[in-house]
This record gives sequence, C-alpha cells and structure tokens, in this order.
Amino acid sequence: MSLKVAILGATGAVGSEMVRVLESRNFPVSELRPLATSRSAGKPVQFRGTSIQTTEVEPRSFEGIDYALFSAGADASRTWADVARKAGATVIDNSQAFRYDDDVPLVVPEVNPEALAQAKGLVANPNCSTIQLVLVLAPLLELSAIERVTVATYQSVSGTGADALLELDDQVAADAAGRAPEAKIYPHPIAFNVLPHIDDFLDNGYCREEMKLLWESRKILGLPGLRLSATTVRVPVRIAHSEAVTIDFARAVEPDEARAVLAKAPGVRVVDDPARRAYPMPLDAAGGDDALVGRIRKDLSHDRGLLLFISCDNLRKGAALNAVQIAEALARRRAPALP
Amino acid sequence: MSLKVAILGATGAVGSEMVRVLESRNFPVSELRPLATSRSAGKPVQFRGTSIQTTEVEPRSFEGIDYALFSAGADASRTWADVARKAGATVIDNSQAFRYDDDVPLVVPEVNPEALAQAKGLVANPNCSTIQLVLVLAPLLELSAIERVTVATYQSVSGTGADALLELDDQVAADAAGRAPEAKIYPHPIAFNVLPHIDDFLDNGYCREEMKLLWESRKILGLPGLRLSATTVRVPVRIAHSEAVTIDFARAVEPDEARAVLAKAPGVRVVDDPARRAYPMPLDAAGGDDALVGRIRKDLSHDRGLLLFISCDNLRKGAALNAVQIAEALARRRAPALP
Repeated sequence: MSLKVAILGATGAVGSEMVRVLESRNFPVSELRPLATSRSAGKPVQFRGTSIQTTEVEPRSFEGIDYALFSAGADASRTWADVARKAGATVIDNSQAFRYDDDVPLVVPEVNPEALAQAKGLVANPNCSTIQLVLVLAPLLELSAIERVTVATYQSVSGTGADALLELDDQVAADAAGRAPEAKIYPHPIAFNVLPHIDDFLDNGYCREEMKLLWESRKILGLPGLRLSATTVRVPVRIAHSEAVTIDFARAVEPDEARAVLAKAPGVRVVDDPARRAYPMPLDAAGGDDALVGRIRKDLSHDRGLLLFISCDNLRKGAALNAVQIAEALARRRAPALP
Repeated sequence: MSLKVAILGATGAVGSEMVRVLESRNFPVSELRPLATSRSAGKPVQFRGTSIQTTEVEPRSFEGIDYALFSAGADASRTWADVARKAGATVIDNSQAFRYDDDVPLVVPEVNPEALAQAKGLVANPNCSTIQLVLVLAPLLELSAIERVTVATYQSVSGTGADALLELDDQVAADAAGRAPEAKIYPHPIAFNVLPHIDDFLDNGYCREEMKLLWESRKILGLPGLRLSATTVRVPVRIAHSEAVTIDFARAVEPDEARAVLAKAPGVRVVDDPARRAYPMPLDAAGGDDALVGRIRKDLSHDRGLLLFISCDNLRKGAALNAVQIAEALARRRAPALP
C-alpha cells in the first residue's frame, strides 16, 4: 500500500509532530505534501532524510491525496475541508471546526474506533485535553458506570502553538536578565505563573477549553448525559498536559481494580508507585505515545469515588499521533492487510 | 505597648518574610531577636534599617521574649517550644508539629479568632494551602452548609523553602545552557515540569500535604465531618499557591451570592472579570496580603455546586502574615488598646 498524505499546517507545533509521527510509525507514505497558509509557506520540512518545501495551500493542493491531515486552525479547516474532500481526500481535522457536527465522527482509536464506519470523508481529531481523559475513563467504564467527573488541568504552552513556546523562552530569559516579561500570545506572563484561562470565555463563565472536555467526552464515550466539569489552567511546562481527576462511580471501585483494567488498556501506562516517587509527570510523558496514569486512590470525600492524575504528550497522543492513528485505522478498514 | 519578638528560622523563606511583615505592619517590636539552628546562625537580618546578627538558638534565647515565632521545621519546634513557653514566651508555630493537638489552637484570625481564647502559650499556624482555602470556605458557609469539597493545587516552590527557589533557578539556567537539570531538593526536576507530590506519601496513597488540607480545614472550620479530598501539585512558580476548588453545597448557591459574601470577607479579594482577563494568578497574589478568588461559576456536574479558583501568597498570608496576625490578635486580647 502506498498513500499520498497532505499536511495543512505542516510547520506548526502539531503539524511538524505529524511529520515525525508519520515517519517514526512507517506510515506507508508514497508522497508527503506539506502545506501552509500564506504566513508559513516556503519553510522546509524534513521527512525521511529529505527536505520538502512547504507550499501555500490552493485548490489543486489536494489532487491525488489520500489523507489530508489539517492542523492550521479552525478557519483554515472550514475553508479547505470541502475542497480536499471533493478532490477525493479523506480529511482528518485537528481543529474544533467540525468536532460537534453530528455527521462527523470524533475519534480516539483506542476508545471509539467503531465511529469511523460513519466517516464521510471527514473525521475530527479531539482536543488534546479530552484525548488523555477519555483514554482513562473508557477502561474504567468497564468496571462501573460513572456518575460524575471533575477535572483540573495543568496544560503546557505547546498546546497554544510554536509561538507560545518562544514566548515562554523569551519570558524566562527576560526574568534571568532582570527585565519585565513581555506577554503577547497570552494576556499575562506564563513564565513562573499559572493562568486559569484557556481559549475564549463563554457566557456561562467557563472557558471553551473547559466546555470541550465536557462536549467531546460525551460524544466520544457515547454518554450524552455525562456529568463533568473542568477548570483548565495553563502552566509553564513546554510539552505534555496533566490532569487531576475526580471520578464518582455508580459502585465503589477499588484502586487495585482500576489499576488492573488500566494496565491492560491500549494507549495507557500505569505509573503509580509513590513510595518510589513514580507518578505521572509532563517531563516523562513528553515524547512518548502513552497517557501516563497514577496517584490512583480512594476519594476521601466520596464513598464510590477515585482520584487519579494523568500526564500525556499533548502534541503526540493529544494531537499528531491520534490523527495518524485515525488515518491508520481508516486505511486498515479499506485494506485489512495493512499491518 | 512594646513587645520583644524572637523568630526561630529567621533566615529562611518564611522567617525572613516574618521580619518584613513585622516591620511593614508596625508591630510594636521593642526588640527583635533572630534565631537559627546551627546551620544558618550568624547570617544578618535587616530590620528597620539596622542589621541584626542571627544567633544560634539556646535555652537562654527566649528570656524576656513575649512572642516567639517558629519557622525552622517540626523538629526544631518540638525541641524548643516548651523551652520558650517555660521562659514566658507565647509560641506561634508555623510547623506541623502541634497542629493536630487538641489543646493547641490552629488559627486563621479572619476565620476562627475565638479559638485563641484556649491558647496555653502555644498557637499553631496552619499550612499555607489550608489558609487560603478556609479564608474562602468560611464566608461561603454563611450561605449554606457544605457537603463536599475537592481541591487541586498549583503550589509554588517557595513553599519548600529558600533552597528550592535556588534549585528552580539552577534548573532554569541549566535548561537555557542546554545542560540536564540537577534535582536535589525535589526527586525530579521542577523547572518546566509539575510534580503531583508534596510532603511524604502516606499508606492511603495521599501525600501528607493533601491530608493537611482535610485535617486542618476540619479543625479550623469546626466541621469534624467535612468531606474533602485534595490533589497537591508543585508547579514551577516562585511565590503564591493556587487552588482549583469544587464545592458541593446543601442548597444551590448562585455565583453572584458567593461573590457578594466573598467581597465582604476579610483577607479575601474577588478578582473575577474573565471578559477583561481578570482572574486570580500567582504573579498577582505574590507580595499581597489577600487571597484572590475568581472563576466563580456553577458546577456543570452538580446542581448545588460552585467552582472557583484561588491564588494567595504562601509566604505571607500562607505563613508569615498569618503568624503575625495571630500575634496581633493575642496582643489585642491582652491589651485591647492595641490599634
């Protein structure tokens, strides 16, 4: 099998990770076409030892393309998704443009691969903070129904993009030099600070990032009545998001039961040996494929509750890897011989 | 009124803040006696424009002292508290040595000043993360009983001490120079990372810091049955702890009701205008006296719940300021004319 793959937004934080993931997973790419909106066109992308020029996206960019991975923001996705589909490409979109459309599957391949059967040339990739949460909630649902989830996040600046990583570095350098930090990407300095604010604020007082966790978890888990609330917080970490999660079950679930089912869950690695200082941390999750889960314990405030902590690379499993896994799953459906 | 004040641990992160707070609040100090265990003895302390040599603590150190503020760790507190009391001093102890003793009041002056009436020469200063939480919970209890609280913290490295601040700076400098970070104070790097681990782990899977939030909130609020669970996380912030808090009330409490009662609460400042990017942040809380509270909203996962976010200077209100306020309240009890 040989597949032609376009990446829209190939030079961004997620897009460049998509290129690396396609290479490291030996995705059967016969042609890689890195695309960008005008701002970033022209930059070279390294793939399998060769340098490929990023070209500005235009209607002809998707001719002959099998899979088009989009990660250039919701506006670009809305502009180019239909163009790519009409050209015959299947679009896997990392923006929030189509995630809540009823006829667009929102997929984490380990959790709801069956939803891909409904794909009509377009699959939405969930938000980073949702992916790592549902990877952990889905196996636990085998043990008991879930009555309520509360989440507090510790999200890295790479979730905002490559510019935000530079802003963090600039602010750290300013701090070392005794200069005041300049904030352009974020409304306040992020170096040596935390911001309880990710994406826009809505009328109900929540950030959109907090609502994404609710909306997307419901759709992916197929639980439209799931009760979930979140506080999303940006922290001065470069890569990998963490989440402190409280889960109320319908029956009392023991930490050992949870560990056992999570230990077998694909995409999840249990790191839970506090006596040996082993627990999930962003520095350990970054660069890896798995959502790390640990600090699993009885909730002292609820008889049927568990608390746990998750760290996961937001650029890889939280975005690029999940998108490539969707492409792999789709390709496997079409050609079951694919390894 | 003129009072003689000793500070044990005067050169530490909290002790040096105690010196600054005594000066800035015009506490009627007729003599300041900075003390240290052997490790730090000899260092000078600046107070009201003069330099005072820190001396190594010995039995005679407390002769003539009215108030002895302790912040040199639990072992030092256990060694020296009775010595100081026998010398006639009232000890205000910032360690965890006596916090859970039934005959030792654990006091946040805005919340439970009446407990000071029971003081027998020794008052315990609560843990930093507890103080900012109960400052917010206490006014809300005027609106409704509380059924359950869950907390996820974002705690600064100054909570560990002055050495940890240096370790963060060293790790940031190593990162800038492309060197691997060295971790000595913490078991893992804290720069550009988060650690779901504060204080020792207990057999129930919780850190002691998480249990302190439960034990101390129950004692200070006088609610021995309070249901509360916490996840405490160290973040690469220098000063000020933050907390994402979920509160289930016995009746539905509206965000506006909560804001109104918190706006009148001493020691609390409502910072809650998301449209103008105003919410609590450690950079804004650091150096101030108040616990900042914002992001107040209905809990989407519970009909009678609120979510909110708190940031507060852990060295000042979380430690030094609260200790000095205890001394002020005690002095006022003894001499009501004190302003």
